[in-house]
Amino acid sequence: MAVKPSIPKGTRDFSPVEMARRNYIFDTIKSTFKLFGYLQIETPAMENLSTLMGKYGEEGDKLLFKILNSGDFLKDVSETDFNERNLGRLTTKICEKGLRYDLTVPFARFVVQYRGDLQMPFKRYQIQPVWRADRPQKGRYREFYQCDADVVGSDSLWNEVELLSMIDTVFKKLKIRVAIKLNNRKILSGIAEIIGETEKLTDITVAIDKIDKIGIEKVKEELRDKGIQEESIEKLQPLLELKGSNNEKLQILESLLKDSEIGMKGIEELKTVVNGFDSLGHDCCLDIDVSLARGLNYYTGTIIEVKALDVEIGSITGGGRYDNLTGVFGMSGLSGVGISFGADRIYDVLNQLNLYPENISESVKVLFVNFGEKEAEASMKAVNSLRKSGIACELYPDSSKMKKQMGYADSLNIPYVAIIGETEMQEGVINLKNMKTGEQKRLTESELIETLS
Amino acid sequence: MAVKPSIPKGTRDFSPVEMARRNYIFDTIKSTFKLFGYLQIETPAMENLSTLMGKYGEEGDKLLFKILNSGDFLKDVSETDFNERNLGRLTTKICEKGLRYDLTVPFARFVVQYRGDLQMPFKRYQIQPVWRADRPQKGRYREFYQCDADVVGSDSLWNEVELLSMIDTVFKKLKIRVAIKLNNRKILSGIAEIIGETEKLTDITVAIDKIDKIGIEKVKEELRDKGIQEESIEKLQPLLELKGSNNEKLQILESLLKDSEIGMKGIEELKTVVNGFDSLGHDCCLDIDVSLARGLNYYTGTIIEVKALDVEIGSITGGGRYDNLTGVFGMSGLSGVGISFGADRIYDVLNQLNLYPENISESVKVLFVNFGEKEAEASMKAVNSLRKSGIACELYPDSSKMKKQMGYADSLNIPYVAIIGETEMQEGVINLKNMKTGEQKRLTESELIETLS
Repeated sequence: MAVKPSIPKGTRDFSPVEMARRNYIFDTIKSTFKLFGYLQIETPAMENLSTLMGKYGEEGDKLLFKILNSGDFLKDVSETDFNERNLGRLTTKICEKGLRYDLTVPFARFVVQYRGDLQMPFKRYQIQPVWRADRPQKGRYREFYQCDADVVGSDSLWNEVELLSMIDTVFKKLKIRVAIKLNNRKILSGIAEIIGETEKLTDITVAIDKIDKIGIEKVKEELRDKGIQEESIEKLQPLLELKGSNNEKLQILESLLKDSEIGMKGIEELKTVVNGFDSLGHDCCLDIDVSLARGLNYYTGTIIEVKALDVEIGSITGGGRYDNLTGVFGMSGLSGVGISFGADRIYDVLNQLNLYPENISESVKVLFVNFGEKEAEASMKAVNSLRKSGIACELYPDSSKMKKQMGYADSLNIPYVAIIGETEMQEGVINLKNMKTGEQKRLTESELIETLS
Repeated sequence: MAVKPSIPKGTRDFSPVEMARRNYIFDTIKSTFKLFGYLQIETPAMENLSTLMGKYGEEGDKLLFKILNSGDFLKDVSETDFNERNLGRLTTKICEKGLRYDLTVPFARFVVQYRGDLQMPFKRYQIQPVWRADRPQKGRYREFYQCDADVVGSDSLWNEVELLSMIDTVFKKLKIRVAIKLNNRKILSGIAEIIGETEKLTDITVAIDKIDKIGIEKVKEELRDKGIQEESIEKLQPLLELKGSNNEKLQILESLLKDSEIGMKGIEELKTVVNGFDSLGHDCCLDIDVSLARGLNYYTGTIIEVKALDVEIGSITGGGRYDNLTGVFGMSGLSGVGISFGADRIYDVLNQLNLYPENISESVKVLFVNFGEKEAEASMKAVNSLRKSGIACELYPDSSKMKKQMGYADSLNIPYVAIIGETEMQEGVINLKNMKTGEQKRLTESELIETLS
């Protein structure tokens, strides 16, 4: 026998049971996107490498899956090219395309490419897999789905409110308890300005982003290592210890950042978003968290991160506002804001908490047992009628032993079995058995349809 | 300004309008698969090249998209390897993975890999994109969707009947008039046997497969060129001219193939399938067509092909029975039968005939106009209530000019606009405007919800 086949590491097959669960998540997210007026687009799995390279940093470039050119991929490769063994140079000569790494860069490319045809503000959603050549580990895959919603072409903070409301809606539907953490990049800029370390903004945010993991003292150590003045670190202290309600936090921030124009702008934005969200009466908790920095170089205003309260798994959704999404493709001045649901982590959370509704299996409602050619023919006619009435059902295709056919119904969790044997054929009835209770009923075809509808 | 970005040739972006149309097709196919008891699986976009290579012939191997190994992809490449410039050899050293080329080989791999966990008969469906490095041309893409349904682990011809019934259901729902062509590989074998050219089976079927395109005389010419005896070609004549109803065709075939055991077996199978299908009272036309050969080396029994009657586009769905799907992965004796809906061709047919239902757009039911901060706040509260009642709606995020906001509603085909201005706020009502008729109504929030539900 041949070697048992397998799939590339970091990738997954999904069985029918897993698909039913995943569809439950995707359908919940998709229906919410539609409820909020987001429109679906899809982009190709492959993008030109020129579109992808340089967009995710040096590390990101390495994590792109590149596709070997078809035909004579060596045609532009000289002996010198080969002997140098410069992997980067060689890659650009033998690969023109790569697999998409996220949905944001393809979306930016899409907006620029079709700018003339798009109605602004453009609210789009996109649910597709992405690929990263990361080292696979628990909860980290090389192929995984992203579910993104973005609005471009509008500066209004109502967009932020709407995205937060959408997060609340999705997790309420999924019954996952979450905390939504909120920050604003302008507040981080204000902080750097106030402590007189504007040029060290990145170092500061990278350090304070770790506060939950390593604690205040270690953060301070890291700041010292990065060459931040002791005096500046002192000034940071109240921010590192920021506590209380959102209003209390906003008051403290206001007094700390009163001399920074950009800082005060950030506070104002944050206030507007928090008040807008609160006015709608959501019950999900919204926490201002100035240590939140994710993707700093990318976001320019609001920063959002969602954590599950009952499972340790890191961020399950994130997003924010960026003022220059499309600048890298030559179209500047277009502001946008968006969020991305991490479907695979949400899947892990639901699995761990077993939060799926009962009966989300995709199987049929009733299996018709097969007793032989004549009975099968009669059964198939009933099956055909039931299907025309929209009832999912099937005939066991072979006249196998009863035990085998019942085992099939059992293992697929099919709730009813219908029996048309010789007697039933003579009497023109169908014997319906409830697989849970064992109860049996003799019904006409139309009674059967009524019972199962 | 930078160069306008683009996508790889042969790939496509899908706009919201295109997505709404495509979702209509996918949802129709998917709901039919579920109605018939097929269970969904998904497999990774990337498979090991060892899984894919050699499964699609020499030409197919060349059309596989290969993925460059990550990290030092040259680590196993010696100077000699390079200097030889043997593309095939080199490819296996720098690429371990490829993109899936169809859904059949990944399904076979899946069945073998999880054989212990699968309940047989296993009825699976799979709707995912595939990739082929074909030369792009009208109607042929490098990334396209396949929608496959297969049953493995059952020899029963009821499976064939069910698949044909599923084809009928899908195209009836889509309102596409089709002809289903039916053949059986055993009949082709019988023909070759009767004319005494068993070893030329492939040449014969390749030639008669072209009868619709090139006519009887050219087919005979090709048979002569392939070295088929004139006497044998004479014997083929009645088959090439086969006409009449399915019953008449079956009678002629019976008299022609009465001395071929395998041929008679094929006729018997064909009869069972045709009778089974007819007994269910479908209205789609089923044509026995002995010139139908598609994928001969692969199919071992029933062969199915579907053509649109009102558009010249070739086959839009096809399939058949194979007795050894998993043999290539070391698991023999597993029979299966399946069909594949060509979603992209079906999309082209629907576009050409404009057969989409009205209002399949994915946009909201009502847009709330934005007159400024206070009005927006009141509108957002109404929006929030409507969404809680499941009505898709949105607030225009900016207080732009009326004309711009109305233009937005217009271009997205939003049927209603809701207005909450100063007067409406004072009176506690919402002004609802029907965008088609221009009619306006003043409603309370609950009346609005009732009207739009």
